[in-house]
Amino acid sequence: MNLPGQEEFEVSSACENVPTGELDSGPGSGPSPNGLSDTDRGELGVPKDPLLFIQLNELLGWPHALEWRETGRWVLFEEKLEVGAGRWSVPHVPTLALSSLQKLRSLLAEGLVLLDCPAQSFLELVEQVTRVESLSPELRGQLQALLLQRPQHLIQPIGTRPCQGSAHPREASHNEEAPLKEQRQNPLRRKLPPGAEAGAVLAGELGFLVQPLGAFVRLRDPVVLGPLIEVPLPSRFFCLLLGPSTLGKGYHEMGRAMAVLLSDPQFQWSVRRASNLHDLLAALDAFLEEVTVLPPGRWDPTARIAPPKCLPSQHKRLFSQLREVKGPSAGHGALTEDRYGHWPHAPSPELQRTGRLFGGLVQDVRRKASWYLSDFLDALHPQCFSAVLYIYLATVTNAITFGGLLGEATNGAQGVLESFLGTAVAGAAFCLMAGQPLTILSSTGPVLVFERLLFSFSRDYSLDYLPFRLWVGVWVATFCLALVATEASVLVRYFTRFTEEGFCALISLIFIYDAVGKMLSLTSAYPIQSPGYPAYGCFCQYPDLGGNESQWMRTEPKDRDDISSMDLGLVNASLLPPPECVRRGGHPRGPSCHTVPDIAFFSLLLFFTSFLLATALKHVKTSRFFPSVPTLPGRGWLVSPFGANPWWLSVAAALPALLLSILIFMDQQITAVILNRAEYKLRKGAGFHLDLFCVALLMLLTSALGLPWYVSATVISLAHMDSLRRESRACALGEPRSFLGIREQRLTGLVVFILTGTSIFLAPVLKFIPMPVLYGIFLYMGVAAISSIQFTKRVQLLLMPAKHQPDLLLLRHVPLSRVHLFTAIQLACLGLLWIIKSTPAAIIFPLMLLGLVGVRKALERVFSPQELLWLDELMPEKERSIPEKGLEPEYSLSGDSEDSELMYQPRAPEINISVN
Amino acid sequence: MNLPGQEEFEVSSACENVPTGELDSGPGSGPSPNGLSDTDRGELGVPKDPLLFIQLNELLGWPHALEWRETGRWVLFEEKLEVGAGRWSVPHVPTLALSSLQKLRSLLAEGLVLLDCPAQSFLELVEQVTRVESLSPELRGQLQALLLQRPQHLIQPIGTRPCQGSAHPREASHNEEAPLKEQRQNPLRRKLPPGAEAGAVLAGELGFLVQPLGAFVRLRDPVVLGPLIEVPLPSRFFCLLLGPSTLGKGYHEMGRAMAVLLSDPQFQWSVRRASNLHDLLAALDAFLEEVTVLPPGRWDPTARIAPPKCLPSQHKRLFSQLREVKGPSAGHGALTEDRYGHWPHAPSPELQRTGRLFGGLVQDVRRKASWYLSDFLDALHPQCFSAVLYIYLATVTNAITFGGLLGEATNGAQGVLESFLGTAVAGAAFCLMAGQPLTILSSTGPVLVFERLLFSFSRDYSLDYLPFRLWVGVWVATFCLALVATEASVLVRYFTRFTEEGFCALISLIFIYDAVGKMLSLTSAYPIQSPGYPAYGCFCQYPDLGGNESQWMRTEPKDRDDISSMDLGLVNASLLPPPECVRRGGHPRGPSCHTVPDIAFFSLLLFFTSFLLATALKHVKTSRFFPSVPTLPGRGWLVSPFGANPWWLSVAAALPALLLSILIFMDQQITAVILNRAEYKLRKGAGFHLDLFCVALLMLLTSALGLPWYVSATVISLAHMDSLRRESRACALGEPRSFLGIREQRLTGLVVFILTGTSIFLAPVLKFIPMPVLYGIFLYMGVAAISSIQFTKRVQLLLMPAKHQPDLLLLRHVPLSRVHLFTAIQLACLGLLWIIKSTPAAIIFPLMLLGLVGVRKALERVFSPQELLWLDELMPEKERSIPEKGLEPEYSLSGDSEDSELMYQPRAPEINISVN
Repeated sequence: MNLPGQEEFEVSSACENVPTGELDSGPGSGPSPNGLSDTDRGELGVPKDPLLFIQLNELLGWPHALEWRETGRWVLFEEKLEVGAGRWSVPHVPTLALSSLQKLRSLLAEGLVLLDCPAQSFLELVEQVTRVESLSPELRGQLQALLLQRPQHLIQPIGTRPCQGSAHPREASHNEEAPLKEQRQNPLRRKLPPGAEAGAVLAGELGFLVQPLGAFVRLRDPVVLGPLIEVPLPSRFFCLLLGPSTLGKGYHEMGRAMAVLLSDPQFQWSVRRASNLHDLLAALDAFLEEVTVLPPGRWDPTARIAPPKCLPSQHKRLFSQLREVKGPSAGHGALTEDRYGHWPHAPSPELQRTGRLFGGLVQDVRRKASWYLSDFLDALHPQCFSAVLYIYLATVTNAITFGGLLGEATNGAQGVLESFLGTAVAGAAFCLMAGQPLTILSSTGPVLVFERLLFSFSRDYSLDYLPFRLWVGVWVATFCLALVATEASVLVRYFTRFTEEGFCALISLIFIYDAVGKMLSLTSAYPIQSPGYPAYGCFCQYPDLGGNESQWMRTEPKDRDDISSMDLGLVNASLLPPPECVRRGGHPRGPSCHTVPDIAFFSLLLFFTSFLLATALKHVKTSRFFPSVPTLPGRGWLVSPFGANPWWLSVAAALPALLLSILIFMDQQITAVILNRAEYKLRKGAGFHLDLFCVALLMLLTSALGLPWYVSATVISLAHMDSLRRESRACALGEPRSFLGIREQRLTGLVVFILTGTSIFLAPVLKFIPMPVLYGIFLYMGVAAISSIQFTKRVQLLLMPAKHQPDLLLLRHVPLSRVHLFTAIQLACLGLLWIIKSTPAAIIFPLMLLGLVGVRKALERVFSPQELLWLDELMPEKERSIPEKGLEPEYSLSGDSEDSELMYQPRAPEINISVN
Repeated sequence: MNLPGQEEFEVSSACENVPTGELDSGPGSGPSPNGLSDTDRGELGVPKDPLLFIQLNELLGWPHALEWRETGRWVLFEEKLEVGAGRWSVPHVPTLALSSLQKLRSLLAEGLVLLDCPAQSFLELVEQVTRVESLSPELRGQLQALLLQRPQHLIQPIGTRPCQGSAHPREASHNEEAPLKEQRQNPLRRKLPPGAEAGAVLAGELGFLVQPLGAFVRLRDPVVLGPLIEVPLPSRFFCLLLGPSTLGKGYHEMGRAMAVLLSDPQFQWSVRRASNLHDLLAALDAFLEEVTVLPPGRWDPTARIAPPKCLPSQHKRLFSQLREVKGPSAGHGALTEDRYGHWPHAPSPELQRTGRLFGGLVQDVRRKASWYLSDFLDALHPQCFSAVLYIYLATVTNAITFGGLLGEATNGAQGVLESFLGTAVAGAAFCLMAGQPLTILSSTGPVLVFERLLFSFSRDYSLDYLPFRLWVGVWVATFCLALVATEASVLVRYFTRFTEEGFCALISLIFIYDAVGKMLSLTSAYPIQSPGYPAYGCFCQYPDLGGNESQWMRTEPKDRDDISSMDLGLVNASLLPPPECVRRGGHPRGPSCHTVPDIAFFSLLLFFTSFLLATALKHVKTSRFFPSVPTLPGRGWLVSPFGANPWWLSVAAALPALLLSILIFMDQQITAVILNRAEYKLRKGAGFHLDLFCVALLMLLTSALGLPWYVSATVISLAHMDSLRRESRACALGEPRSFLGIREQRLTGLVVFILTGTSIFLAPVLKFIPMPVLYGIFLYMGVAAISSIQFTKRVQLLLMPAKHQPDLLLLRHVPLSRVHLFTAIQLACLGLLWIIKSTPAAIIFPLMLLGLVGVRKALERVFSPQELLWLDELMPEKERSIPEKGLEPEYSLSGDSEDSELMYQPRAPEINISVN
């Protein structure tokens, strides 16, 4: 168990999040100066090099007002002093002129190189460095005084005007050992990990020197060099680049080149182990060997390049060198392997078949049992509080919206109250028992659609819905248990992206269609009153013309003065609004008595507003809060097993149950695979069989209680995991935070569902939220889900002329006509699904979804494995046949860049299967 | 006069649009191999080098199935063959490994270099190239046969599968002189300018060679080398890089390096003039000297960099070298000069004061007279037709929207009809007479606002509006003529961005405020009927209870059956809708008789929809078509000079006229300066004085006829110019089109306004367009205009924590606190303007706008010139004092990159002054 904050500087080496720690791992590549092959030293656990903070102090103001000023700093990226603005630039990828690297190389080659210098203070260091024969004694003294001069640092939060407040220029004497107050208070210090070391580069133009003076020092023991570095870090490297003013800005550029070199992990690694000048120059040459060159005139060399989200890993540097040596074939196997490393359906160890009945379940239980205690202890972190709040809001929103939809779908047979109760019971039980306790259950899209179909089916045949549903649930639980027993979860690998996208697209379209349909039916229920509409107005008519009316007129003249003052000249009628009229004993008469104006347009406004609002809030990570009509029928806790239905219906329920089982199996397992992807770095393993087992048990429970059915919800579970990310604290200088893993525990989910259960008291206030708002949200869900899938992008390609198409990776590898063919087949499948869904046979649509797997299998006869690799994924049998095929000359031709392009693109979860 | 299409390959050298022709100009920089200083050769008109198309043919399939395949091509950028997809990649900036450049250098140094090779065919060339002593005769024969093998080209539109259809592999014998059919039909051919030459790089691994074979050939006369190049261009350069298979992919990379070298204009220039191997290597070294280096591990070397919108110019390359030699001071003068080159208010020659009365006007007339004939002849280009259509639609839209607004502003004193008529008359007259005939006149925002104020003023004091307005117009014309006479237009340089933004922000806010206000008043005029609303319904009551009613009931029972069948039991009333009721002789009685339901929400829907639609269409270049209520009072053609007003009012009108003159002067001249910016490359010169003169005359005319007042409209005039851009045809390979200038002529504008005049017959159909749509458009105009100015960005900075701020150029140079101070002052000024606008003194707001110039002047005491340079612009007097100040060490420190960053940013027209 980790204490809070302890893992902040833990090391990880994923491409997706480049960690500070990457600097620490041994360099990935080849010929290191002392001939060691250190390719996997980092992985073997050898102590890692500390992080290096590099600072460039520049000598300015020659000849009259010499002063040192910090003008640049580096860890992975460069920050530049923006003098006029008095701030540090945004971190950016440093660019160098090749010439300045070459000038630096020759200066170092002729200069002084001290490796393992024993200096214990800055004074000693300065003495060592200036002990060069070319300097006369008085020049040496002058130089020493100059070097000891305190440099000006810009310490960001204080300085609004450049270099004031924090800097004390030209103050020659100082106590080196004690760091200055502003150094200690520098906020940068908190951003650097403990144990970090510094490197100082001092560069500038110094007119009294006759020839350039270059010195490179590696200190044996890192020493805090007084106020030299803006943070009181012990310095390991020191580099001096001074000379006469012939070179113009050359010294500035050489200083930058030195700093960039030192910030390179591989150069750093080599130079920490260099034993002489030759090693140093060899490290520089090794650096030069690997630089990327941009031609002049095609690229502005001063454009600032933002730090990439994901850096090429050290592994890649190794890899490109390996390929250089072994030829292109070395690259290709790795390409395929790397793809599979990121693959959503990579066969994880949990999905290996044991061959025994309930074997997978037993293994899951064993595996998870060992973590059970830690599943509660690991939750003791403040981050879990915010996760609970965030997921609670999302869950309640979900319960309300889907409760509303459910109420509608089942004509009120289930509603918001059941939704709350069911979510609380099922969710909490799942959190306590499940294999992947980070999963949040929800009454999601596909199951909801099926329930709606089931309800209309039972209504068409005048069945008692809830008892029928109970039997369906019983059968589903039975089937699911059979699936658990036979370890059917391993079949999940046959659900490729083709299947997932078909699934997702259908459900999304149903959502969109329904939302728009509901709105249209609403506007026809509350018609828009156009001014020329002949049926117009509403009277309040009193049945008996006698004294009743006149008496009433007399009794309350003040209440009604707005009406009576109109002097209608009528004796038997008034213009009271219908409810009031009825209360007074009259009869509302007229065509407009039962229509309320303004409803249609107001509903449309609400519908579009909530859709637009949801769209606008998509990227803002606040949850949305929209409730609906609570609908609760007067019924007992337990559903009677037969009700008004004949006994044989309990057997016949097996048929729809089979379909629902397919649906639940697909939905549950696809979600589980996505949640257990390797990129989330889960330590406690998955429990596919155990999860399905829990879903089966809950099916039984919720059916018996008449509560909604639940499966894992992809999006909300991903949000849950996201809110529990463990990350390293971001280092300074533009480096992205590194992802360390997920706080895997059961407590947050449990608390969320307990809170959801208590929120049942919210239900009465929720009825005031109008339905059009909900429809808007459903529209948004459908649109959001359907626009997130690759299928949609490919459909857009169908309509786009080739030269306007985006530079998609798959278009680089698959001919456009083949892409179009694949898309067309997918569209045809979707069309077929839609037609089936619109016929009376709608209830068999889960079977058709499963049919997509067969269609996908048949596609292997139409498309080559390479094409399918890019368009979809491979089905299990074919997986291992690719590396061989990939070696055809045609495919090795352009292999050099694609693999890295692939690695460069972080593979985020691509598909939102469920639309909740 | 240019014939259509003639200028397609004309040369230009602006940064904004990097032309194909840039390649042709002599290289900008220094030590050329033969010692010539050719820095300005291009400008001196020396014949320019042709464009070079470079193709890399790679030898693949060793050892069994050798074949040449074209795998890359270059002009400015690289296109790479995507083998799997069978298409060319998007053009991108090529990146190289430094090592491959170095390997190439050593291969060339040891290889064969033939300069001015006299070969007349590919066969001769192959013989020359293979005449190397290291080759045995049979090897030579083998090699020759291999080289003569026809390469496979991917000719895009045919090939859907890779390299089929267009390629005929392994067909050794062919007629070299006749280009193949597919070569001639290659669509790429049309994209390359006539006179283009080709360079062929042949690279690959050839196992039977014992040592690498490098050859570089410059042909004396360019020759079409048979099917070697995919387009039948004469080849000038030929490079062969073959060798044993030890290097792996090295030959491919070396081939790319050679191609990138050849695509560099400066290398190309040098190598065209090289006389020996030494020159060739020197050119390569010069290239290396200038490359940008990206450190490994910070940048994925295989990431594709999209071609920049604007390339660093050759001038810049010269410039950076100059600075290297002369030190930083050389750079700084140029920095300032370059800024002013792009400056919106650069003192153009037309804005030099002559010192004589009407001197500027006379000069303008003289200058423009010489172009008058060409102003009509230059319009004979098909592009002008589409420009007319586009601008006509925009103008009509404008006339309708502003006509509608005008009608509202003046309670119908002027309306759409006047708007059409006035636009036609004023626009056409301006096009015929003006100094800048590309200007489109419009009744724009500020003048409209003033007119509204003037109208409410005249209503408050019960003045006869149109006669009063006539006198204001007469005075304005007089003042404007005085301004022309005194050459006041030169004062336009005092209107810096500070003033422009104050102007723009105020007008935008007025638009937004009005649009929202109108909508609110509309919803209060047509209230939303809530169900519990007590006053409800409407009778139709018949005055005499006698036989009249019953008779009527009997006469038309069928028409009314929906009412009569209700059996209301009333004898003296029905539920007929009010208009029908009145027609029938009844009286509508009841609180709801005069309210129409649904209007408020429908209006809101229209308002938001039109706003969102306008926002969505912002980037789509289609004009929007929205008309409004025509409002036409019954009045004569000429406005009577006094009407009901006292005589002295014609004198008093001078006061508002003074204010309006300020407004018109500011609006007209700021627009004129923007339209005449240097970046539009106008050849016929501007006519600031003449334009103002025309505006003055039109003022007189429109006032006399009671038509709207007109000044130049920035946005629509810019759109006009944009639609008349002359551009070079885009070359292949990602190069941006180069901008050659504008088709300056008077005809398009004239035709547009004649068409507008005839569109007056459209007016009757326009009344069906509802006002909320118009309000939505106005809201969009206000929002669009206010979000386009720098001021808005700075206001956002006020609310943003420093670390989330964007990397704005001005934040790099001005301390944040100073930026905030400047913004706060601007906000205060705007607040003051708004307050004045809201008081009865509103009519003096033009004077206050002019006051902004004074405030700006006072700011020179608060801010340093450097700060003002970045936050605003400099006022004329200070312009020349900057270069000296710029040399302080603090400012030269970071000067090296800023100037180029500045040059790198294309300075598009930054401000939309008018909101039409």
